[in-house]
Amino acid sequence: MPQDRAFAWIDVQRERRERAGLVRRLSPRPADSPLLDLASNDYLGLARHPEVTAAAAGAANRWGAGSTGSRLVTGSTELHATLERELADFCGFEAALVFSSGYAANLAAVSALSGRGALVVSDAGNHASLIDGCRLSRAEIAVVPHADPDAVRKALGAAEGGRGDEAAGGTGAAPAGRRALAVSDAVFSVDGDAAPLAALAGACRAYGAALVVDEAHGLGVLGDGGRGAVHGAGLAGAPDVVATATLSKSLGSQGGAVLGPARVIEHLVNSARTFIFDTGLNPAAVGAALASLRLLRREPERATRVRTVAMGLYGRLTAAGLAAVRPDASVVSVRAPSPEAAVRWAAACRSAGLLVGCFRPPSVPDGVSRLRLTARGDLTEPQLDEAAGVIVRTAPTA
Amino acid sequence: MPQDRAFAWIDVQRERRERAGLVRRLSPRPADSPLLDLASNDYLGLARHPEVTAAAAGAANRWGAGSTGSRLVTGSTELHATLERELADFCGFEAALVFSSGYAANLAAVSALSGRGALVVSDAGNHASLIDGCRLSRAEIAVVPHADPDAVRKALGAAEGGRGDEAAGGTGAAPAGRRALAVSDAVFSVDGDAAPLAALAGACRAYGAALVVDEAHGLGVLGDGGRGAVHGAGLAGAPDVVATATLSKSLGSQGGAVLGPARVIEHLVNSARTFIFDTGLNPAAVGAALASLRLLRREPERATRVRTVAMGLYGRLTAAGLAAVRPDASVVSVRAPSPEAAVRWAAACRSAGLLVGCFRPPSVPDGVSRLRLTARGDLTEPQLDEAAGVIVRTAPTA
Ligand SMILES: Cc1ncc(COP(=O)(O)O)c(C=O)c1O
Ligand SMILES: Cc1ncc(COP(=O)(O)O)c(C=O)c1O
Repeated sequence: MPQDRAFAWIDVQRERRERAGLVRRLSPRPADSPLLDLASNDYLGLARHPEVTAAAAGAANRWGAGSTGSRLVTGSTELHATLERELADFCGFEAALVFSSGYAANLAAVSALSGRGALVVSDAGNHASLIDGCRLSRAEIAVVPHADPDAVRKALGAAEGGRGDEAAGGTGAAPAGRRALAVSDAVFSVDGDAAPLAALAGACRAYGAALVVDEAHGLGVLGDGGRGAVHGAGLAGAPDVVATATLSKSLGSQGGAVLGPARVIEHLVNSARTFIFDTGLNPAAVGAALASLRLLRREPERATRVRTVAMGLYGRLTAAGLAAVRPDASVVSVRAPSPEAAVRWAAACRSAGLLVGCFRPPSVPDGVSRLRLTARGDLTEPQLDEAAGVIVRTAPTA
Repeated sequence: MPQDRAFAWIDVQRERRERAGLVRRLSPRPADSPLLDLASNDYLGLARHPEVTAAAAGAANRWGAGSTGSRLVTGSTELHATLERELADFCGFEAALVFSSGYAANLAAVSALSGRGALVVSDAGNHASLIDGCRLSRAEIAVVPHADPDAVRKALGAAEGGRGDEAAGGTGAAPAGRRALAVSDAVFSVDGDAAPLAALAGACRAYGAALVVDEAHGLGVLGDGGRGAVHGAGLAGAPDVVATATLSKSLGSQGGAVLGPARVIEHLVNSARTFIFDTGLNPAAVGAALASLRLLRREPERATRVRTVAMGLYGRLTAAGLAAVRPDASVVSVRAPSPEAAVRWAAACRSAGLLVGCFRPPSVPDGVSRLRLTARGDLTEPQLDEAAGVIVRTAPTA
């Protein structure tokens, strides 16, 4: 049949993927898994906290199963507004805007704050959603080496000298120069290392550029009581700093947010495509995130605990000779000699009752496969001993 | 302060927007609004159906408030798998894949099924998420006039003749030609008109191209028992046809899905960035969508009823001399003389107790502002009389 031609190329790609040992398959989990979980991003152990699930259930009952429309039409409830207010207040920003995912929030922040003629300086280790935001922006993108504020400074300087004036007219930028933005994860999702935020802000300020920081792995873990890395660096609420966040990791729910000056938030309401043309976050997710936020505010030690757990895990693994990266937050990355070895290692852990993440190409920017372990604040010391024991025992002997 | 420079350009844009009368503000709604709702996309009135909200609440309690990770790590539950199976089965496709939003599903389908060197032929009236999918794809994009299968045929033909062979090597396409895709909404979100799917499929098949159809406004409304426009056109399950859907309109929840041949779904699992790098849909939303789907299957007359309501509304408005577009599904579009007039009209409806959508630039591809009314299957004849009465009474006298 001629219809069979349309997707014939997919089989070619599948064979290539199979030969490289890079095929991924879904393995749906049951409601109650016997495995010890060191793979989820439920850093504070709140996704199944009774207060949080009750809030999700209560919100669905009171507000409906869906938000029923774009936030600009029927999709904004008072529950959304409450979450936005409390999240902005907690993290130290003037205003916040909730999206249906952290991915959508990142697409919005990067693309609506740059645009054709602008310059976006992006860390080479940034998350896929920030990269896609760059691609959608139509801006000039300068990818700079990972965690390198000097490189950011150089990229901004080159642009200023090169064509600041020429581009200003078309972009609505201040007459002094071209619209420019540096973008970085607060904590990088693969290796768990933190960005040098103060130095990045310094580089941006030297050129009147804005700084956008993705707090996906920072919120609930870093900063005073889990207020995030931007708050920890004293940058929250600054007129030139924007943070993005996900509600799906520390807050145990789903959704995303952009935090920043009120004028930035108002600008996103009016121009961000993934805000205007997307259905508002469903009430259950909004209610759950709000309950988690209030819990975290009440019990700030949850943020400290997750960092202690991460360091405890790291200490145990390196003491046994494994090549782990010192964690700045909750993610502990352990290198594996090859994609196949990483897959076998993760499978061996699983057989021993331990669930770990396994990152392989194309999910790793440097092509190095690794186990990705996530600390959770609710893990006990005996559980850490057990987890580390399994990982060490099953390690490849390369 | 130098920091204030970074976002100074936003104020310039805001003033421009204010002068043009195009500022948007959020107006969060209470849990129980006294307004008659003709603005939401809750076409079947299921978002607050007790079976659906109970399923959302039950899923949050049983599976947790969040899915806790990427679908490839910890974010796939058996609940996700059940929804995928039942949705594919209902719509007549081999397989389905659930995303965190319809927006994310569209980004995935368009970008992962094309790519650099490919050709994507896109209807000029397509939804923002399909357009962003095109932008992310790095493919060559041919935007063709709205609902014009001959234009699609010509665009595919020009590409085949022009450089089919040259591009084949790099893209993994079948040796016979270049990877090509036509993309269309099933029902266009602004005017509510349906795409000529059979003719589009014919154009694609003449060139071995695939067809991607966005069922956002088709699922639950068109086709046998709400199986969608693709099913209605006899194209469901074809080896060269892919449908995308949202769970946030007829199904009253949140989330999105791609439906298609198993090899396409497997390909998306392995390559779609908004699948791999995004947290799985939260359990409450999955549970609610599944409950809605089962309800629709049990009560197929819900789909018929929403079309009857839409035609009833259209009939009343045109009888009174208003310029409404004959609805093919549940959306009824009524033209307004200007953005200001549309805003005033919608505000007057609101004062009279009726909530209607108001679409203005830049949300309308043709720059024409309109009221956008959505029919819901649970509206009664007296409610329709009242709604039409208000709209006619408050119409601008231009
Ligand atoms: C650094 C980072 N940013 C953004 C996201 C996307 O957030 P979400 O899953 O809420 O879409 C993720 C992970 O999912 C992430 O790790
Ligand atoms: C045609 C169309 N496609 C896709 C979407 C996006 O779906 P979602 O809101 O689930 O992201 C919408 C509306 O929101 C739409 O109208």
